[in-house]
Amino acid sequence: MSPSINTSRLLQSLDDYAAIGATDQGGVTRLTLTDEDRLVRDRFREEVEAIGLDLRVDDFGNMIATRNDLQDREPIQIGSHLDTVKRGGRFDGALGVLGGLEVIRTLLDAGVQLRHPLELINWTNEEGVRFEPAMMGSGVAYGVFDLAWANDRRDRVGLRLGDELERIGYRGDMSNRVRPGAAYLELHVEQGPVLDDEEVSVGIVEGILGITWINVRLSGQADHAGPSPMSLRRDALAAAAEIISMVESLVISQGPPAVGTVGRLSLQPNLINVIPGDVECSVDLRHQHPDDLESLVEHFTERASAIAERRDVGIELDRFWTSESTQFDADIISAIEAAAKQKAPSSRRLWSGAGHDAKYAADAGPAGMIFVRSIGGLSHCETEFSQPEDVVAGVETLLETVLCVDKSL
Amino acid sequence: MSPSINTSRLLQSLDDYAAIGATDQGGVTRLTLTDEDRLVRDRFREEVEAIGLDLRVDDFGNMIATRNDLQDREPIQIGSHLDTVKRGGRFDGALGVLGGLEVIRTLLDAGVQLRHPLELINWTNEEGVRFEPAMMGSGVAYGVFDLAWANDRRDRVGLRLGDELERIGYRGDMSNRVRPGAAYLELHVEQGPVLDDEEVSVGIVEGILGITWINVRLSGQADHAGPSPMSLRRDALAAAAEIISMVESLVISQGPPAVGTVGRLSLQPNLINVIPGDVECSVDLRHQHPDDLESLVEHFTERASAIAERRDVGIELDRFWTSESTQFDADIISAIEAAAKQKAPSSRRLWSGAGHDAKYAADAGPAGMIFVRSIGGLSHCETEFSQPEDVVAGVETLLETVLCVDKSL
Repeated sequence: MSPSINTSRLLQSLDDYAAIGATDQGGVTRLTLTDEDRLVRDRFREEVEAIGLDLRVDDFGNMIATRNDLQDREPIQIGSHLDTVKRGGRFDGALGVLGGLEVIRTLLDAGVQLRHPLELINWTNEEGVRFEPAMMGSGVAYGVFDLAWANDRRDRVGLRLGDELERIGYRGDMSNRVRPGAAYLELHVEQGPVLDDEEVSVGIVEGILGITWINVRLSGQADHAGPSPMSLRRDALAAAAEIISMVESLVISQGPPAVGTVGRLSLQPNLINVIPGDVECSVDLRHQHPDDLESLVEHFTERASAIAERRDVGIELDRFWTSESTQFDADIISAIEAAAKQKAPSSRRLWSGAGHDAKYAADAGPAGMIFVRSIGGLSHCETEFSQPEDVVAGVETLLETVLCVDKSL
Repeated sequence: MSPSINTSRLLQSLDDYAAIGATDQGGVTRLTLTDEDRLVRDRFREEVEAIGLDLRVDDFGNMIATRNDLQDREPIQIGSHLDTVKRGGRFDGALGVLGGLEVIRTLLDAGVQLRHPLELINWTNEEGVRFEPAMMGSGVAYGVFDLAWANDRRDRVGLRLGDELERIGYRGDMSNRVRPGAAYLELHVEQGPVLDDEEVSVGIVEGILGITWINVRLSGQADHAGPSPMSLRRDALAAAAEIISMVESLVISQGPPAVGTVGRLSLQPNLINVIPGDVECSVDLRHQHPDDLESLVEHFTERASAIAERRDVGIELDRFWTSESTQFDADIISAIEAAAKQKAPSSRRLWSGAGHDAKYAADAGPAGMIFVRSIGGLSHCETEFSQPEDVVAGVETLLETVLCVDKSL
């Protein structure tokens, strides 16, 4: 019989951390490397040290708390982030760190001795809103980003990331970097509506979709809206509209988890009585397998070009960024699934459309993620909310997974 | 045998006027009631007085040059405008005034005595770009706009129209306003591609399309582009795209001269990886008969609402402006057609999608318009251009129409 977590302690902990950078609308603003981030880091350090963990800080400010009782095996790692977006929610990130902390406290309280050391990680700058890109701390730790390059990122007012890291006192040593462990586990709110729509408490994440971003420029002919017969028009917005609808039907025809979004669009001259001459828009395509994503891009390119050609509108496509898909470790997925069946009122497998630090961890070693239902799928907003029963189910599932992985590996 | 115009004098005159407010790219900037407008008005006054015409100026600055030899009949009026948009072309407006001046010069040179007095009008602020709305001088003259209201219009830097009219010295007397005449004729470049596309020199304008403007607001749900499955999205831009395509197919199914344009569009939050939650766009619908226009609006409303409902996206439609269609006088259309058959290498009937001062004149009495082919249909730009042979054909057609109307009325 596994120990149970202390629900009131967990919820109190979430409340306490949400007070650091709290907004007037019930959300949290704790941008990375600000004074609020320093405050939450200080608190985290005090709390993990208070329960006897060792805390080390690496050269990019990633914080690693270790239950340092066993050193002969690779650690089981639990990670997430304590930074937030501007006016973000109280669960995104914090749930993973504080859920991990509750797991460790529960194991300590119950006197459970694991076979593996446990590491609890708070990654620097997961959100990437103050300093782009996102998932920077895990990216530096796992060698995706060069440290000097990352330190040179600047925020909107020109402050340098490395200087801000120094300022808040959280530049540590390179020797403290995480090393690939036996397993990396991350608990997170879904940031999507799948679980809530099906009233499912916990999600077993199979992987993170591959993403590609394409910029589309359409060049038609701006002209008076009145005197130009429909047959002689070269309307860039009408072409864009057809492309937007095509993106939608293309990904629907591929079936889940493929998604496609046109999120950004600008047009010229943008006047009520002038046919739009130029449109620039973005296309975000995501799919679970690299081959499927490439095939999506091929179909998109072919169809968009045909639409533009038929309308005598110029088209330029610039595929400027791609993030490969990540498939989580099959054994860890199975362990999470077994744990969720025991500990959560309901669960299902699903893919993550959003990136997480677990992506870079998965490139380095066995990894998996647990999602918790988020009301309306909302996140990155002050109204982000997860029910206590789902939060508890998620943390219980994390604890059970740790126990299972510890035994089986 | 009718007299022929003096081609070189006409073309020289167009060149001379284009020098007033000339831009470095071969266009003209002569915004209404600016110093450039004063200069062109001064020149027009000198030239009409030099050939013995009387010039009167009304209380809104409209200039009326009269060949004052006969007073027992209502005048035949030729009108257009000498103001331009910013970096506009050299024909839009000026062709009508200077073509009319050439007609009068030709008649004087040939000693032709008409049965009706002739009036040549330069309307104030046809373009409506410095002070909105357009066609203001004819609107005031024909009672569409209240004089005090029109005088109170302000430009972008806050200058008042009435003050600027005073400043350039062109406020005249209300007693000088035009009165409805026997016929109002306006020669203008097409500002559309129909004549150029068919390589036709001169257009016989049957009327001006009715126009209605609708503002569309779509409210969906902004969400992360990754984690939201297609089936759970409420994407306001995808809804807008479907509506844009629907507008296009709707007016195409109605056939010419119906046209529909979505020219203005904005979206929120307008980020590459976020599903657009809100879109606002404009719809401009034009048709030749009021019933047809109403039917277009009804179909549009029905289909747009159905699209929004199917997508669970909120929709608000605000039809905030309508300009009724204008049907030109059948006898004047016939006279222009007969004249064009004699004087132009090619001609065809067509509808004007754009508004002109002739619209308000037509509400007050018999009116008609002659269009001249414009390369590529371009106007309101520095590259606006009409070939000399088409310009001459248009002015010859205007002269022949004046002679015909003078005999038949």
